[in-house]
Amino acid sequence: MQVFPYSQLYQFTFDVFKAMGCSEKDATTATAVLLSADLRGIDSHGVARLSGYVRLWQAGRINATPDIRIIHETPSTAVIDGDAGLGLVVAPFAMQVAIDKAKQVGTGWVSVQNSNHFGIAGYHALMAVKEDMIGMAMTNASALVAPTFSVEKMLGTNPIAVAIPAGKEPAFVADFATTTAANGKLEILQRKNANAPLGWVQDELGNASTDANILKKKGALLPLGSDREHGSHKGYALGSIVDIFSAVLSGASYGPWAPPFPAYVPMPENMPGKGLGHFFGAMRIDAFRPAEDFKHHMDNWITRFRAAQPAEGCEKVLIPGDPEREMEGIRIHSGIPLVDPVVEDLKNTGSLFDIKGL
Amino acid sequence: MQVFPYSQLYQFTFDVFKAMGCSEKDATTATAVLLSADLRGIDSHGVARLSGYVRLWQAGRINATPDIRIIHETPSTAVIDGDAGLGLVVAPFAMQVAIDKAKQVGTGWVSVQNSNHFGIAGYHALMAVKEDMIGMAMTNASALVAPTFSVEKMLGTNPIAVAIPAGKEPAFVADFATTTAANGKLEILQRKNANAPLGWVQDELGNASTDANILKKKGALLPLGSDREHGSHKGYALGSIVDIFSAVLSGASYGPWAPPFPAYVPMPENMPGKGLGHFFGAMRIDAFRPAEDFKHHMDNWITRFRAAQPAEGCEKVLIPGDPEREMEGIRIHSGIPLVDPVVEDLKNTGSLFDIKGL
Repeated sequence: MQVFPYSQLYQFTFDVFKAMGCSEKDATTATAVLLSADLRGIDSHGVARLSGYVRLWQAGRINATPDIRIIHETPSTAVIDGDAGLGLVVAPFAMQVAIDKAKQVGTGWVSVQNSNHFGIAGYHALMAVKEDMIGMAMTNASALVAPTFSVEKMLGTNPIAVAIPAGKEPAFVADFATTTAANGKLEILQRKNANAPLGWVQDELGNASTDANILKKKGALLPLGSDREHGSHKGYALGSIVDIFSAVLSGASYGPWAPPFPAYVPMPENMPGKGLGHFFGAMRIDAFRPAEDFKHHMDNWITRFRAAQPAEGCEKVLIPGDPEREMEGIRIHSGIPLVDPVVEDLKNTGSLFDIKGL
Repeated sequence: MQVFPYSQLYQFTFDVFKAMGCSEKDATTATAVLLSADLRGIDSHGVARLSGYVRLWQAGRINATPDIRIIHETPSTAVIDGDAGLGLVVAPFAMQVAIDKAKQVGTGWVSVQNSNHFGIAGYHALMAVKEDMIGMAMTNASALVAPTFSVEKMLGTNPIAVAIPAGKEPAFVADFATTTAANGKLEILQRKNANAPLGWVQDELGNASTDANILKKKGALLPLGSDREHGSHKGYALGSIVDIFSAVLSGASYGPWAPPFPAYVPMPENMPGKGLGHFFGAMRIDAFRPAEDFKHHMDNWITRFRAAQPAEGCEKVLIPGDPEREMEGIRIHSGIPLVDPVVEDLKNTGSLFDIKGL
């Protein structure tokens, strides 16, 4: 484990994106989005993925100089073609379109085709909060999740983020995979050679399993709820809604045909659409009630929930976004810890372009 | 257990709403919404609740002749004051406003204050499907659910419904409480004197419990995910988002202050808003891509998911909405079974107004 200042990782990552051929502006955006994951403690979605993006670019699956454009629109909606660009760049572009539409007609809703992984959903949803809007972001992803009653991997971990402004209190920021546990949590267990709790994964026959490596043995992640008796059909429905809004609505590739993140995995045959899909929403608070009224009541909501009586052995009730914001406050000053395999991987990635600095 | 033809329950329920003072039009709407739950097999939300609505009306908490009106709007949004009307009437009014806005600018989003329980969320979401739109409906409800790490009941079962049109295939209709199990499922266990599975409820100290009557002993329902290790913070976030969109955005009463459904439970003190809140959305498919293209791909999505390999011992993968649609196909012809306590309760309700017919 080594700890790096944010500024050092920022410069390194920026240099890699520039070396891939990204414009100054796009490299800046991509770096800010990618590192927001490390700052917020979502280590699986930050610089640990940089080499993955580079390999997709090397494989010709990511276009470093995309012509991102609106291909269909109404006053409150748009569909965007990401031109196979970095999702880290396509997503903020699309979210800005949603925000601009909300300024005009109250809300904006944007579905995106032909994109790639967009980092953490929460970054994009939070863009709306600065504008006194509620922000939403979701994306489909390559299939790792078996629907209820099935053993076949049909859906990605398909995250949903919703960011809601408050007044004196910090924003409410929910950002979660629609599975019981995100894949990143399994990866942490794999590194520790530890078992997964029952309810996270199943084996190739659909039996409960604690094997953190089960996905490599034809197992699957489980939808939020774990099993039918505990509501996995609800997690399956949520993941499906994300898939449909992100990909069927936009013309991206959906379900088991979503393109894989690892560049060594062949692209699915007979893909029904182009690339990964995302979906973004922005709702202007004052399209519903005066922003100051809303924020006053959000402060009251947050204060009341923080004061809810804790269970025995629990310190306090958290508001969605609390842990990530606290982590960001620490890491922006104290630096970002990276495990040795990630540091090694980053150095190898840098050496491809003769970039040092780590 | 007795089985009643749909038409008989329809006439009876219509007569009760008329006797409460509802207009012909409102009684028709309320009856159609309420009985759609019985038809679709969601027995907890159908005529079993009729007496509850009557008691709220007797207690002066439901206004049978509401002046439902838009109090704020933009091209894509509206806030509606339900004037303490039946949610069964207020909700279709609000959903129609969302649909009308979507016709104009692509999408429509409506938050509602000062309403009451609106029946099943799926009915309202499905209104959009007939217009080649995606429909969404959600509502807050009286607090039965403890947030992760808490023993205090702060949220309702706060359901979410999303209905998505397809082509030759029937619509995708997700409609679920944001808890591990809906309260209606506990009520069924109570009648059978049976235990609940671990993960549905907790006791007053926050310990896991199988007692189906635990809510009467200061216990609470658990958010979807059951416990922190299995993602209950995600269910808590979902329930919170429903509460905020439905009530904080509209000016309804939120969180632990949401008004109770049982008329004998006193209203919370210092309510921060008016009545229950709902939130509705309608997105015109062709605001994103041609409706025929979308429906073709939805058919492909549904066909592919139906063909997903079943787990051992499971027959097939279901598409959200399949069980309810199949039940509706059966019950519209074969009638609606009601357990004896519900029949008795309905007869008592009828006798209040000298209505027979059961």
